[in-house]
Amino acid sequence: MELDPKVKERLRSDKGASLIMSADEAAAMVKDGMVLGVSGFTASGYPKAVPHALAERGKRGEKFKVDVYSGASLGSEIDTEMTEAGILGKRMPYMTDKTFRKAVNTGACDYVDMHLSQSAQYVNYGVMPKIDMAIVEALAINEDGSIVPTTSVGNTPSFIRQADKVIVELNTLQPLSLEGMHDCIILDNPPNRKPINITKPNDRIGKPYMECGWDKIAGIVITDIQDGLRPLGAISEDSQKIADNIIEFLNGEVKAGRLTDTLLPIQSGVGSVANAVLYGLLESDFHDMTCFTEVVQDSMLELIKAGKVNCASTTAITPSPEMKEKFDKECELYKGKLVFRPEDISNNPELIRRLGVISMNTALECDIYGNVNSTHVNGSGMMNGIGGSGDFSRNAAITIFSTVSTAKHGDISSIVPFCSHIDHTEHDVMVIVTEQGFADLRGCTPKERAVKIIQNCAHPDYRDKLMDYFERACKESALQTPHLLDEAFSWHIKAMKTGSMK
Amino acid sequence: MELDPKVKERLRSDKGASLIMSADEAAAMVKDGMVLGVSGFTASGYPKAVPHALAERGKRGEKFKVDVYSGASLGSEIDTEMTEAGILGKRMPYMTDKTFRKAVNTGACDYVDMHLSQSAQYVNYGVMPKIDMAIVEALAINEDGSIVPTTSVGNTPSFIRQADKVIVELNTLQPLSLEGMHDCIILDNPPNRKPINITKPNDRIGKPYMECGWDKIAGIVITDIQDGLRPLGAISEDSQKIADNIIEFLNGEVKAGRLTDTLLPIQSGVGSVANAVLYGLLESDFHDMTCFTEVVQDSMLELIKAGKVNCASTTAITPSPEMKEKFDKECELYKGKLVFRPEDISNNPELIRRLGVISMNTALECDIYGNVNSTHVNGSGMMNGIGGSGDFSRNAAITIFSTVSTAKHGDISSIVPFCSHIDHTEHDVMVIVTEQGFADLRGCTPKERAVKIIQNCAHPDYRDKLMDYFERACKESALQTPHLLDEAFSWHIKAMKTGSMK
Repeated sequence: MELDPKVKERLRSDKGASLIMSADEAAAMVKDGMVLGVSGFTASGYPKAVPHALAERGKRGEKFKVDVYSGASLGSEIDTEMTEAGILGKRMPYMTDKTFRKAVNTGACDYVDMHLSQSAQYVNYGVMPKIDMAIVEALAINEDGSIVPTTSVGNTPSFIRQADKVIVELNTLQPLSLEGMHDCIILDNPPNRKPINITKPNDRIGKPYMECGWDKIAGIVITDIQDGLRPLGAISEDSQKIADNIIEFLNGEVKAGRLTDTLLPIQSGVGSVANAVLYGLLESDFHDMTCFTEVVQDSMLELIKAGKVNCASTTAITPSPEMKEKFDKECELYKGKLVFRPEDISNNPELIRRLGVISMNTALECDIYGNVNSTHVNGSGMMNGIGGSGDFSRNAAITIFSTVSTAKHGDISSIVPFCSHIDHTEHDVMVIVTEQGFADLRGCTPKERAVKIIQNCAHPDYRDKLMDYFERACKESALQTPHLLDEAFSWHIKAMKTGSMK
Repeated sequence: MELDPKVKERLRSDKGASLIMSADEAAAMVKDGMVLGVSGFTASGYPKAVPHALAERGKRGEKFKVDVYSGASLGSEIDTEMTEAGILGKRMPYMTDKTFRKAVNTGACDYVDMHLSQSAQYVNYGVMPKIDMAIVEALAINEDGSIVPTTSVGNTPSFIRQADKVIVELNTLQPLSLEGMHDCIILDNPPNRKPINITKPNDRIGKPYMECGWDKIAGIVITDIQDGLRPLGAISEDSQKIADNIIEFLNGEVKAGRLTDTLLPIQSGVGSVANAVLYGLLESDFHDMTCFTEVVQDSMLELIKAGKVNCASTTAITPSPEMKEKFDKECELYKGKLVFRPEDISNNPELIRRLGVISMNTALECDIYGNVNSTHVNGSGMMNGIGGSGDFSRNAAITIFSTVSTAKHGDISSIVPFCSHIDHTEHDVMVIVTEQGFADLRGCTPKERAVKIIQNCAHPDYRDKLMDYFERACKESALQTPHLLDEAFSWHIKAMKTGSMK
């Protein structure tokens, strides 16, 4: 069989040709009860053809279930289609998909929500049931059977090592110029782990490919399917105000001499607020910035291109479709500046503390004492996973959480007396930002925090009501963190009954 | 003036003699509104004479207040006497003192409860108001004015560096053979921080003394006061059962091949359960163990002496009075095996993750989904601070929390539907242990966790009631983490009204 030249330059051994098969043939190797470890982190660099074919098996009525471990959330071929097909058992470590969310919240699927930096470790320490098969998107397979990743590294190196068999989706759509931007390594398990020798975000310690070997590769599927990238929404007025407030806070830190105008490495969550903040930095006086994060979106790529950011460490990029097109053409521009790492490196506590990351993530709700809920609606319903926010928030130099002060057209206050679920405790949350302003909670007692949060961050419609709760709680007792337990969730309960906290 | 030979060997420069003064004279240098940084971590290595004299100033009716930063809780001369004297303003980062607790919970004193690894950082980054004066217990002052600590290092190196003036309490009671056991360093602030080159608990990276210099030393007070050490209580039956359950869990990990019989470095909180666990290890088959912790008590010293533990890293020792007497005589035995570090090293996320620490701490209460309350009674009243438990729990290889399943003679269940305060989230808590058994929560969904916790850990008197809450919550909705918000705190509310959760 004569290989397409596009395939030939990516399949770098004669051993490869005989392993080429259709997605259906590859999917047929998956058996009921298997644990699959798949590449990908957010809708980036994940396998598409084989999971689609697998879902089709389920949709045709075949009864089987598989557990799926990944780097983070994935594209619709897995989180949507496999859920719809009823073939997803347990899933970890992160999710954002609407269909999968519904399945989790009806009990149809099991979801383990965990700190992303711990997910490879749970595999490598043997805590989770063993991975039977890895399904991995690749840019190329080298002569020795090692695998070059595409736009994410995630947990893939560890998954490949543990899997008995590996199915590779060789994606000819991904630009070969990505090669060399990955820095792959599997950390030794304690007590044999050595210091991770990274002192700048673009320091390299690993290899530009993932170890595998031909013995393990059970099938190669040639694809040219694009990641399920999404167009970026316009930046809302509220997001812009939040971004302005964060930049005002950062400017204050510079003025106080606690930061310089190159800041410290930035970690930024995804979404509208994150984009607004980063676009704000594009127009700021800050310069020679760096980034140490888990996902890079359009705005960070722009910052690098504009020379405002010197280098960025990440485990994935998830640009908009338009930006991806540009990125694929200009990939060389980013070499030496953008490094893709496994997520136990991108999110490693060692590096986050050492580099002094400025961590910026979003909250679903925040309470008057500074606890943050990132994951659950009304304490019970999973919205999105915690992701890497806990890795960063506990260990960063500065931890910022932001949220619009109200939701549902003003009916829900994002600042509440008591968070209905707590993902980030009062000890972790240094700064809270809404479109109303920011509250710097560092060095504050709980009561000092409450006043700042209510006055600076709550929406004016809820300020008096929050202050009333706080003052009555203080009157009942002057305890360290005054609460009225019989009213603590009354705002949530009211909203569940009436649709509004008002 | 001819110096006592005991003083002479500890005051290693002629510059010292003229600085010797009484505790009253030293205390007179403290002015209203000052921020004091004091040595000490738990009732170990803290200044005693000057704080006592300072409290006396307050008790004589002088009106002034000072903020006090320390390593952790301190002995009664500070946390009790200064509180009683009404001269304590803001206090950070940890507390356990009964008198100070009362003052915090009546609003008489301000208390900032924080992760211990972040406390030096808050000082070094300039987040907290600047330290005016450091008051430091010393074993010796070297010729160049550098200071040798006694039985704790805590945050003292950073406090000395930031303070304008330093008062030294030279304690002739502390054995000179402690010299050489300290490993002092101040980490560079990011972005200039380098990897911390420790791969075994007893690796050394710093100096056996803290930098200071004669210019800063404003007074030297000679003392021979013992730390406020407390006799150890007998190990209760419940503590013993908890210890047995922890050791059973660890044995299971060895059997499953996830640990070897040398375990991984142990971090252990203080108190009856911790002592029982460590005494349990003394009689176990584990050998050549290591320890990476923040406080070492009698049991760990016994483990080292018995050759069961090869080396231990800590920031302080707080032995019982009997053990301290032995330790002072046998100090040489521990050289090279016991290392005292600053607490931003002893609790550093970098080292905790790299070394793969087994973290064992106690919970006040734990909820059915695995969230842990370590600090607040009924969500409002401060009990003890969070201390280093958050540094360890988020970053350890294995995170264990233990509690007796009931308190107040069975009237309070330590397993509740919803924790009234959350210090350790569901994402951090891997194993819960009570005298009833243990629940290994790793890789479990919230609903799987609830069943394990209720069945294995809750007291039989509360098991049905907890299961009833859980089942009704699941019936109402099959959401990821089913709760009945209007009942979530009903157990606490009932206990506050009737004294019992029954």
